[in-house]
Amino acid sequence: MATPSLPSAKVIHVDTRGAVILSEESPETRDSRGIYLPNYIEPVSHIAVDVGGSLAKVVYFTRSPEPPSSPSIIATRGSSTASGISTPRSLSPSEDTSNTAPLSSSAPSTGTRANGALTPLVLDAQSSLGTGNGNGLSGLHTELLRDSVLRRTVQHFPGGSLNFERFETDCIHECVEFIQELIERSAQVNGVSIEGMRKGVKIMATGGGAHKFYELFQDQLQVEVRREDEMECLIEGLKFITLIPDEAYYFSDELIQSVAHPQLHSVHGVLERPSPDPPKFSVSFETNPTPQLPCLLVNIGSGVSIIKVDEDGRFERVSGTSLGGGTLWGLLSLLTPARTFDEMLDLSERGDNSKVDMLVGDIYGQDYSKLGLKSTMIASTFGKVFKKGGEKKHFSPEDISKSLLYAVSNNIGQIAYMNAEKYNLDRIYFGGCFIRGSNDVFLAGHAATIATLSYAIRFWSKGTKRALFLRHEGFLGSIGAWIRNIDHEGELNTTQ
Amino acid sequence: MATPSLPSAKVIHVDTRGAVILSEESPETRDSRGIYLPNYIEPVSHIAVDVGGSLAKVVYFTRSPEPPSSPSIIATRGSSTASGISTPRSLSPSEDTSNTAPLSSSAPSTGTRANGALTPLVLDAQSSLGTGNGNGLSGLHTELLRDSVLRRTVQHFPGGSLNFERFETDCIHECVEFIQELIERSAQVNGVSIEGMRKGVKIMATGGGAHKFYELFQDQLQVEVRREDEMECLIEGLKFITLIPDEAYYFSDELIQSVAHPQLHSVHGVLERPSPDPPKFSVSFETNPTPQLPCLLVNIGSGVSIIKVDEDGRFERVSGTSLGGGTLWGLLSLLTPARTFDEMLDLSERGDNSKVDMLVGDIYGQDYSKLGLKSTMIASTFGKVFKKGGEKKHFSPEDISKSLLYAVSNNIGQIAYMNAEKYNLDRIYFGGCFIRGSNDVFLAGHAATIATLSYAIRFWSKGTKRALFLRHEGFLGSIGAWIRNIDHEGELNTTQ
Repeated sequence: MATPSLPSAKVIHVDTRGAVILSEESPETRDSRGIYLPNYIEPVSHIAVDVGGSLAKVVYFTRSPEPPSSPSIIATRGSSTASGISTPRSLSPSEDTSNTAPLSSSAPSTGTRANGALTPLVLDAQSSLGTGNGNGLSGLHTELLRDSVLRRTVQHFPGGSLNFERFETDCIHECVEFIQELIERSAQVNGVSIEGMRKGVKIMATGGGAHKFYELFQDQLQVEVRREDEMECLIEGLKFITLIPDEAYYFSDELIQSVAHPQLHSVHGVLERPSPDPPKFSVSFETNPTPQLPCLLVNIGSGVSIIKVDEDGRFERVSGTSLGGGTLWGLLSLLTPARTFDEMLDLSERGDNSKVDMLVGDIYGQDYSKLGLKSTMIASTFGKVFKKGGEKKHFSPEDISKSLLYAVSNNIGQIAYMNAEKYNLDRIYFGGCFIRGSNDVFLAGHAATIATLSYAIRFWSKGTKRALFLRHEGFLGSIGAWIRNIDHEGELNTTQ
Repeated sequence: MATPSLPSAKVIHVDTRGAVILSEESPETRDSRGIYLPNYIEPVSHIAVDVGGSLAKVVYFTRSPEPPSSPSIIATRGSSTASGISTPRSLSPSEDTSNTAPLSSSAPSTGTRANGALTPLVLDAQSSLGTGNGNGLSGLHTELLRDSVLRRTVQHFPGGSLNFERFETDCIHECVEFIQELIERSAQVNGVSIEGMRKGVKIMATGGGAHKFYELFQDQLQVEVRREDEMECLIEGLKFITLIPDEAYYFSDELIQSVAHPQLHSVHGVLERPSPDPPKFSVSFETNPTPQLPCLLVNIGSGVSIIKVDEDGRFERVSGTSLGGGTLWGLLSLLTPARTFDEMLDLSERGDNSKVDMLVGDIYGQDYSKLGLKSTMIASTFGKVFKKGGEKKHFSPEDISKSLLYAVSNNIGQIAYMNAEKYNLDRIYFGGCFIRGSNDVFLAGHAATIATLSYAIRFWSKGTKRALFLRHEGFLGSIGAWIRNIDHEGELNTTQ
């Protein structure tokens, strides 16, 4: 399979053939679904952590020799006990026949996050001294068979799942505890000492917090911590994730309800101007993805980075804006009673921005048709709020949320479009945690953001450029850190 | 003098030779100073009104045959009684010898706004039936001399002042009253009937409110009201105002206090990144202005319009953003106790945005030097405000104001720069009422906005593009409406 080459002409060692995104278990796992990689072999277990301004994202791989019978089982329980394959009881003390209990008696405080254990092949040397293994290859494993020939065979049994977890950066200790418990549980499952397990595990840290929390990770986890450049990880993650079938999606050219809303499409195919209620297009998935370079990557977290990626994988941070997710969350936390991001999104869905925004019609009393400005177009976000004399009127949290969610999204879309145009790039990937909503993206929740970004690109580019979104939008950096590590291993192997 | 040609190859009939900006009387008149035009002859009096979303701007011309002995006298008293030229007592019933009383006994409620009367030459036919005139040509005027020969001579006595007034759009009746009183007073000063005066006056209305308030103006003022296209007026105003000496200004290449702050300039001349506290450059005025086309005009009112102006005067609204003055004023009116824009500016001057903004250093613990991102750079505006769990912390109005003033200004600068780059324009004029501050621009007040816009353009263009500002920044549209009317007259004259 043709994978795009690395900047330095290295080869990505993750085999994505046959990759499957595991089913969604709950709204909260929307962008945390596992990805099953039937052809990937992991030599060393790497736990990748991307610590951003607001969220810390964790990615790690758990082995499983057969594809999941039901992807949803994998997603819930972790790959090492999936597919109904029995493992020696000694490895999973508390495991019951229904396979639903935690793998380890030292169940982590994070509860549902105990999905799987690390089973790096390099542990085989250690685990041969122990009482079991975590390869999940039922029927093959007895102590008698543990010779080097078999170990080499086992090493080439591929398959397993990539797992995704997310923590608040303000509660970084929860992230550290999660990794600690993962390592402890994995030692138990693999039947090796905690010291042995620590030698088979590495932390790949990226994001701003990789520097800030470097010593915390190293001291608390007592494993090797490597720092990876944030931008390089982002791009590596993008290159990987866009090869996973059904990962990327976009708004197709087909309007939803075009019959019910015939006014959305003019007879000449002219697009109406962007607004908080853009035309609704249907969603398409990239089922047979091809390499997606060159492209523009717009990473929206607390702030926004805009990165140009060339066809050969070289990249440059060409722009950005400080008006990102943090701006919206911060403003709405002061201006509304909402206490969570989801509450803010809920508010915005019920809002009417025209109560706070000044529309073209409010100024002109009509369209400004000479300039093609419709009366419903927003001339000034929040333009109705400030009154002479300082009268402090009351505005509803719903209307405020709708206005600001649209304003921030549209501003990002505008700056992204201008950069795509400047660098002549037709594919614009939007990633980062701002995109994420609790609910399924096409039905509710953060659909407003996606629709706004998508329509803004469609409108300004006259349909020549496409906004693309990713199911694992928040994990590009952590996936990239995980891959870069793999790559380093591959590099080591080839130079040995 | 070479003036740029109009889009339709018309000629501007306003003679700007010898133009002088009159002295400032008080902080509140900063962008309302009169402009003395010694060589301009006005055939008909035109009161131009530009009604925007927040402010209504009025421009009109009052004749004065000699240049002001002291510009400040003109600015205070209006041109028709300036220069110590005595006028017949019968024309100004309440005038006293110190020349400081209002021109008319029907002193307008707007008090200090009673600066001058309209004296259109077309009134001469009417005023010959009356008892006096307002030409202010002392010693020449007696009823005996009122023959057609003299009238033609008088018609070619040039000189007078352009006057500027500003009202809140929400209080549009104040604007209408002001114009009504101006017409009534002018009738009295010219010694003609109010009906006669109304025939010698036209209202040139532009801006969104020209449509919305068209009937209000027509019904209340009982004069002809013409509507002019907003964008065409803006450009016309820009072309005119940039020919006035000392009108346009910019930040020169010389740093203020570069000795006191040597760190502001690196040894290699690399500019530090934009921030709320950019390096302070000294101000230069365009004392000998040359035609300034092509250029980009960024008009910042409640919202923002970005207009590309070609060398031949053709223009196109190429971009804009709804994040403008209305957004900042609206947000700050909800988030701070400030009741006026000036109070908001005052707050922002005392604020520390790093209390609410997430800086690169907050995320990375250091610079992200590989990308050239300094630790003090704002990664996320308001990024420190939202906390997990919805804890509502208190943030100071000062810090909030500083953060948002910078964010809105910088965002406009960024979008403006990208458009200037796209269209390869080196001159970027910033106009509109957002720029305005109460205090002298170089000392305090809205200096932050100007410094932010100026430095953003300097930084992103690596010094190749220049941000230019205007003393009459808020009056481009109304000046343009006034000029377009003049032009129509000129056109009529040439086709007669």
